[in-house]
Amino acid sequence: MKTLIKNGRIVTAVDDYTADILIDGETISTIGKTLDIEADRVIDAAGKLVIPGGIDPHTHMELPFGGTQSSDDFFTGTRAAAFGGTTTIIDFAVQYKGESMIAGVDNWHAKAEGKCAIDYGFHLITTDFEDKNVEEMHTLMDEGITSFKLFMAYPGVFLVDDATILRAMSTAGERGGLICMHAENGIVINEIIKRALEQGRTAPKWHALTRPTIAEAEGVHRAIAIAEMAESPVYIVHLSCTDALNKVREARDRGIPAFAETCPQYLFHSIEDYGDDFEGAKYVMTPPLREKHNQSELWKGLKMDDLQVISTDHCPFCMKEQKELGKDDFSKIPNGAPGVENRMVLIYNGGVTENRISLNRFVELTSTAAAKMFGLFPRKGTIAVGSDADIVVFDPNAETVFGVDNEHMNVDYSSYEGWKCKGRVDTVIQRGNVVIENGEHKGKAGDGQFLKRGTCVTV
Amino acid sequence: MKTLIKNGRIVTAVDDYTADILIDGETISTIGKTLDIEADRVIDAAGKLVIPGGIDPHTHMELPFGGTQSSDDFFTGTRAAAFGGTTTIIDFAVQYKGESMIAGVDNWHAKAEGKCAIDYGFHLITTDFEDKNVEEMHTLMDEGITSFKLFMAYPGVFLVDDATILRAMSTAGERGGLICMHAENGIVINEIIKRALEQGRTAPKWHALTRPTIAEAEGVHRAIAIAEMAESPVYIVHLSCTDALNKVREARDRGIPAFAETCPQYLFHSIEDYGDDFEGAKYVMTPPLREKHNQSELWKGLKMDDLQVISTDHCPFCMKEQKELGKDDFSKIPNGAPGVENRMVLIYNGGVTENRISLNRFVELTSTAAAKMFGLFPRKGTIAVGSDADIVVFDPNAETVFGVDNEHMNVDYSSYEGWKCKGRVDTVIQRGNVVIENGEHKGKAGDGQFLKRGTCVTV
Amino acid sequence: MKTLIKNGRIVTAVDDYTADILIDGETISTIGKTLDIEADRVIDAAGKLVIPGGIDPHTHMELPFGGTQSSDDFFTGTRAAAFGGTTTIIDFAVQYKGESMIAGVDNWHAKAEGKCAIDYGFHLITTDFEDKNVEEMHTLMDEGITSFKLFMAYPGVFLVDDATILRAMSTAGERGGLICMHAENGIVINEIIKRALEQGRTAPKWHALTRPTIAEAEGVHRAIAIAEMAESPVYIVHLSCTDALNKVREARDRGIPAFAETCPQYLFHSIEDYGDDFEGAKYVMTPPLREKHNQSELWKGLKMDDLQVISTDHCPFCMKEQKELGKDDFSKIPNGAPGVENRMVLIYNGGVTENRISLNRFVELTSTAAAKMFGLFPRKGTIAVGSDADIVVFDPNAETVFGVDNEHMNVDYSSYEGWKCKGRVDTVIQRGNVVIENGEHKGKAGDGQFLKRGTCVTV
Amino acid sequence: MKTLIKNGRIVTAVDDYTADILIDGETISTIGKTLDIEADRVIDAAGKLVIPGGIDPHTHMELPFGGTQSSDDFFTGTRAAAFGGTTTIIDFAVQYKGESMIAGVDNWHAKAEGKCAIDYGFHLITTDFEDKNVEEMHTLMDEGITSFKLFMAYPGVFLVDDATILRAMSTAGERGGLICMHAENGIVINEIIKRALEQGRTAPKWHALTRPTIAEAEGVHRAIAIAEMAESPVYIVHLSCTDALNKVREARDRGIPAFAETCPQYLFHSIEDYGDDFEGAKYVMTPPLREKHNQSELWKGLKMDDLQVISTDHCPFCMKEQKELGKDDFSKIPNGAPGVENRMVLIYNGGVTENRISLNRFVELTSTAAAKMFGLFPRKGTIAVGSDADIVVFDPNAETVFGVDNEHMNVDYSSYEGWKCKGRVDTVIQRGNVVIENGEHKGKAGDGQFLKRGTCVTV
Repeated sequence: MKTLIKNGRIVTAVDDYTADILIDGETISTIGKTLDIEADRVIDAAGKLVIPGGIDPHTHMELPFGGTQSSDDFFTGTRAAAFGGTTTIIDFAVQYKGESMIAGVDNWHAKAEGKCAIDYGFHLITTDFEDKNVEEMHTLMDEGITSFKLFMAYPGVFLVDDATILRAMSTAGERGGLICMHAENGIVINEIIKRALEQGRTAPKWHALTRPTIAEAEGVHRAIAIAEMAESPVYIVHLSCTDALNKVREARDRGIPAFAETCPQYLFHSIEDYGDDFEGAKYVMTPPLREKHNQSELWKGLKMDDLQVISTDHCPFCMKEQKELGKDDFSKIPNGAPGVENRMVLIYNGGVTENRISLNRFVELTSTAAAKMFGLFPRKGTIAVGSDADIVVFDPNAETVFGVDNEHMNVDYSSYEGWKCKGRVDTVIQRGNVVIENGEHKGKAGDGQFLKRGTCVTV
Repeated sequence: MKTLIKNGRIVTAVDDYTADILIDGETISTIGKTLDIEADRVIDAAGKLVIPGGIDPHTHMELPFGGTQSSDDFFTGTRAAAFGGTTTIIDFAVQYKGESMIAGVDNWHAKAEGKCAIDYGFHLITTDFEDKNVEEMHTLMDEGITSFKLFMAYPGVFLVDDATILRAMSTAGERGGLICMHAENGIVINEIIKRALEQGRTAPKWHALTRPTIAEAEGVHRAIAIAEMAESPVYIVHLSCTDALNKVREARDRGIPAFAETCPQYLFHSIEDYGDDFEGAKYVMTPPLREKHNQSELWKGLKMDDLQVISTDHCPFCMKEQKELGKDDFSKIPNGAPGVENRMVLIYNGGVTENRISLNRFVELTSTAAAKMFGLFPRKGTIAVGSDADIVVFDPNAETVFGVDNEHMNVDYSSYEGWKCKGRVDTVIQRGNVVIENGEHKGKAGDGQFLKRGTCVTV
Repeated sequence: MKTLIKNGRIVTAVDDYTADILIDGETISTIGKTLDIEADRVIDAAGKLVIPGGIDPHTHMELPFGGTQSSDDFFTGTRAAAFGGTTTIIDFAVQYKGESMIAGVDNWHAKAEGKCAIDYGFHLITTDFEDKNVEEMHTLMDEGITSFKLFMAYPGVFLVDDATILRAMSTAGERGGLICMHAENGIVINEIIKRALEQGRTAPKWHALTRPTIAEAEGVHRAIAIAEMAESPVYIVHLSCTDALNKVREARDRGIPAFAETCPQYLFHSIEDYGDDFEGAKYVMTPPLREKHNQSELWKGLKMDDLQVISTDHCPFCMKEQKELGKDDFSKIPNGAPGVENRMVLIYNGGVTENRISLNRFVELTSTAAAKMFGLFPRKGTIAVGSDADIVVFDPNAETVFGVDNEHMNVDYSSYEGWKCKGRVDTVIQRGNVVIENGEHKGKAGDGQFLKRGTCVTV
Repeated sequence: MKTLIKNGRIVTAVDDYTADILIDGETISTIGKTLDIEADRVIDAAGKLVIPGGIDPHTHMELPFGGTQSSDDFFTGTRAAAFGGTTTIIDFAVQYKGESMIAGVDNWHAKAEGKCAIDYGFHLITTDFEDKNVEEMHTLMDEGITSFKLFMAYPGVFLVDDATILRAMSTAGERGGLICMHAENGIVINEIIKRALEQGRTAPKWHALTRPTIAEAEGVHRAIAIAEMAESPVYIVHLSCTDALNKVREARDRGIPAFAETCPQYLFHSIEDYGDDFEGAKYVMTPPLREKHNQSELWKGLKMDDLQVISTDHCPFCMKEQKELGKDDFSKIPNGAPGVENRMVLIYNGGVTENRISLNRFVELTSTAAAKMFGLFPRKGTIAVGSDADIVVFDPNAETVFGVDNEHMNVDYSSYEGWKCKGRVDTVIQRGNVVIENGEHKGKAGDGQFLKRGTCVTV
């Protein structure tokens, strides 16, 4: 099966040129000024951008959390991702305390198997890491699970102590594995939450007011300090504020391999969105939304490469029955929000059309950087001969209107209800197959394959 | 009883002039260009410096630690302090886990009662601080225990978690109390020690090699971050290195009330002093001695007021029978070293005669700043009308030779064996009484009184 | 002649106690808990502060500038200073281009001789400094002119190039002299002014809008860099903004002897005071008033000792006939504003009563630090036996109301019209003589003596 | 004419894959997994790297300087560049004081016309920039001269004042032009040189000892400050030291578009290379070689993108008759050294094989970044369909031995005499024509075309 994409403006993290692309089977076979080749299918991309499929390295499908479970399963979530121009996700399997790491991954394989509409990989949320787990980590890395997420937050649930962090970083780092860190001092935060609740402060906005940016910055600083002692790199997930970004900047100025992602919610929303009533529960996620002045600093960080990746931390919960669990106590609201479908257009619109980042940087932040960070490159993350034909034909002039009625995530609200954005995902190709076309899903559950990932090549 | 000190060069943290001082009873009554007054005793201070008695806010007398007890008791230790020109110490009482804070202080009162040769106060090492302890802290502050030391190091012994730190800082800070912090990430350090021992690394120098400066800097940064969230000041004890100092500098540049002391050992010794054999056990203290390049940065910090106080962390253990406990395992060497007697002359020589600090700054660092920091000012820490007559007549031209034979601490070695220093403590007056004269102790156990301290006036 | 000040609360840069002070002739003879001594005059200071007379190291009396001359002469200006609690000024003599340095000083001696109500010294504004001037600088230093001011601003008038700065710093620094720097990139600023005028922007506010904080920060950075190369200290005059302060902070963190003063106008006024009409001319001074957010950073700098001195840059011009010169062109408005009389009360009120600085720090910033910086200590700047009896009895509870009708400066407006401040200067004593009492000047022109200054003891 | 490169490992700034490249005429026509196409010429690149031709944006051919002229003319210099794997240079035309900018460019066109072996562009060294020059700058930008170099050094020769810098930056910046800055405080440096010569310090090493790193850092800071005020980007040429790099880091952390290049000499040589005798003249270039510890910081800067480009500042002078001009006075030694031929292999060896940078970053630093910075992208700087076929087949396993006998620059010494490096330039193709093959030049003078450049796309 051959597909020919004609006359598109091909944009990678570096290049920008007009040419034809021949896909033969699952990969890109030829790129030429003018390819006069017979193909089973021809896509006219004149006037369109032809970019690598998005990679979202931070999603939580079917995640049990806060007494419920995130509302997208691996089918609805990955299909929504595809609609949004994302062709690969890396989701988080969980090793619960007392469980083996391998069991954790097996459980997630069982969830995802046969359901994904796009390709997927796993990080492993690691809650125990003693000497006895070293061998397991090696086994998982052999099987393509090469990154492990640790939490400095959520005491009693996910939090691990600093010795565990050191051990995990050392072991992973020795063979190129990467530790992803939820960097917030959860122990201090829980104390602050306790006091707020004692004072009767229960509305959603108190979720934000009890998680100071200093607690995040402290976590980032400590994570990097331990990584330095472990002589390993570290990747900070969902960095949300200037205070935390400054810690990454300082480390990078010293040449330390510290990396970080941010998410669209921190670029486009702010603490004011909580308001005073329960509607604010839509934005109860961790870290919380921050003061507005943080946004421009995050954009600076993205531009100057102090932030390398934009992920979504997609973790949807419906307002009804799910978010409502915290009606009378913000600390019981399940943490998370939808977003996997919105990312590409949001960043195109807010980044490229608003002149904050270049088109090349847009591709790098939404695809290439994650591919290199998490061992998927050059299979994913670029448009080059031999790479998987994961391609988005993107119309830079058309408009996308967000809203729960237009979106495909399994959740009863949109974080961007009514927003009109420049840019539209026209056609999405995954390993040579058109999966999205004319606003319809042309694929099926199980199209997506599990990705055995290699190790980070960014360091 | 009246004492007249004639013709001395009186130096305070700010002033520098020649005059006569009349002591009436325990306090300074009059200072005049020429006082023609009858006195019971006249001391000729011509050609000498007349400075406030030293204040050492960090000593450990009779401290049970590492299966033994520091070798100076409250008599030998305070007498040695007096010989060295120090007229006030603040020692550390200990609340052991499970014990009440008040019991901790009572135990130390029992140890010190009737034994001290000079005035003394207590900080309280606090190992439990739950809501139920709030009232106790208030009681202690009423009784003049206004500072509390917490440990980020020594897991299982003294270490408290970050929530405890926040609680203690908030409670103390509300009424002007001060948290003193041993800021080192002891959890990470213990993990590093475990690995070193597994690899057979047992010599004293491994004490230093398993406590990276990053672990101290991380602790300092975290302590300050928690203090910011608690809206309280914090005082870092025994800061030893540039990496940690930089964290204090950054905070102070932002106007944060973060304070720190360093100790002579970090100014004059370095990691090379450990050598390869067991003699290095003399210098097993925490934090350990650092690379030599840290010394000049600490002096800079002292000069520019990023470090405010020089204390000793005096905590002597004899080589014989005490340090020897770690003959085969550096982690079993009792941590600590003697120094209470050496401080004033060391700093005069290394600071003033070496032109690193001014004479006024010498007085400030060794006396005035501690008095203000720990609520003893203006009773202590200055030469002013109405203040306690705690005065040292110091000969700037005479020489002091250190060495175990010349010193009065109860320990079988000197950290400065054979060092010749410019400057000599000639006469020491405590509350109007001469306690040291002609190299002899003229006082007795019990001369020193417990000091009910007020709160910090430095913030 | 003996004067006894009874029962006052004596506050120096370090001390704070209640005692009696005996003045014998021009100096302080005795300080005692209770002095039962006959005196020619007794001042009851019960309930009052007794503080060192203020030192204002930055005034411009009778300065020819911008086609006119500052409106206070050495009598009216120094008398106003005395009313405000200031007993010493250091004014700026000027060496005009082509003139000898000595001639410059002689000219200012001629102006001040017999006119000053309080003691005074001179810095020399130096506009030429070639090898041939080296000897002159030495001569002046022998005669007590130990500080020299250079300008990076005002091209064609005062500006000197970087080679001149290096030469002057090296020569002065070798024997303890100090370079005071007007640090603003005047060459860039003049270019910006030229453009603004071309665009018809002539109102007073454009004075501020054409002098970006970056131009000041650049000057500060460059001045410090040249000082480092000259291995000399440097003192930045009238620092006005955070951007510039940050350069001083960075240098001081590295241990560089960089010092800076700020002035009340930058602490209490902001760019909004310019308004849109010509009334803004009152605040046309250089550097200009800045955005309000700079104020709290300057207070932080004062508290943390990144700023060491508060001077006034007193340089008054009447609105009528003087400021009016720039009616149609902001660049022709004489630069400067009155303030020598307001400083002490403004800083007491805004600093001490607003809890931004301690009482000791108030004394240090307004008197002691300048005395040490400019070689007047311990003669001036403290209350100590042997020092000049320059003393202010200050009522902390009384109120001062500023306004042109209540002030004594020779100018037709007040920068603080109608401001009510806590604190009042009650009695001012200069070298033993009461010069201000009950709101009246008791002295006369010529009471003030020229001060041969020594060198900086702050480094 | 068609050329097929088979089986090479194609490496761009982002990509890394194995494929065939078809060149049709001067550009890349097709890239395919396997291209079965007839071609006039087939190059087997199996086992080799296929990378974009190097771009050296900083060379000085036939530059009159210091009473002589750089020894490479546009033919010998560009041929040597080609031997070294560089297919584009950007050389510096000079507008001498009093001359029109256009005349300056015309003079350089006359020199280069018909002589270049590779493509070339011009920056213009601008020594006068008044309002009357604005139009000229626009004309030049229309003609593809879009970057202008200003000097803060060399007073009396090239130095311009800060107002000129502001004007030039504003004018260029308004339409995307870029100011390249030689950032060293030449006024201070000349003063230091004067003193050194007065003291009889004449050996080459004094060239380095009279140009402190602070003088460079000051220049960099000032250049960036003026650029901020002009709201324009700035590009620092030949950054040599940590002190200067830190200024770029600080600016970039704040999101300021400040860019910088370094050169191989600063990465591989150090101040020790000057020795004590006249042999050190080989390394008399500006800025001078620095202390060794700077090297690792520059590599960090290159890795973390605080430095964006590696150029050579190729400006050769023979020891005989040229460098000898400064036999008795280091300040008379012509400043500059050869290097255009060494760059690619040096950076491959020192960067990639020493694991300091990745292979992609090697390409970016030596080619892509300069193409984007100076408006040559995507015509130059990448391997993509439609781009000029400027391609180097590079053997990563072969070795290059440097030395005057093996090199082709017209100069009587090599800066890297006897150095053995991993990596060898095998074949060099310029716009489809093989110019270097089997160690021989296959092209001729005049092959190279003048490049009309667009504007910077990096900002």
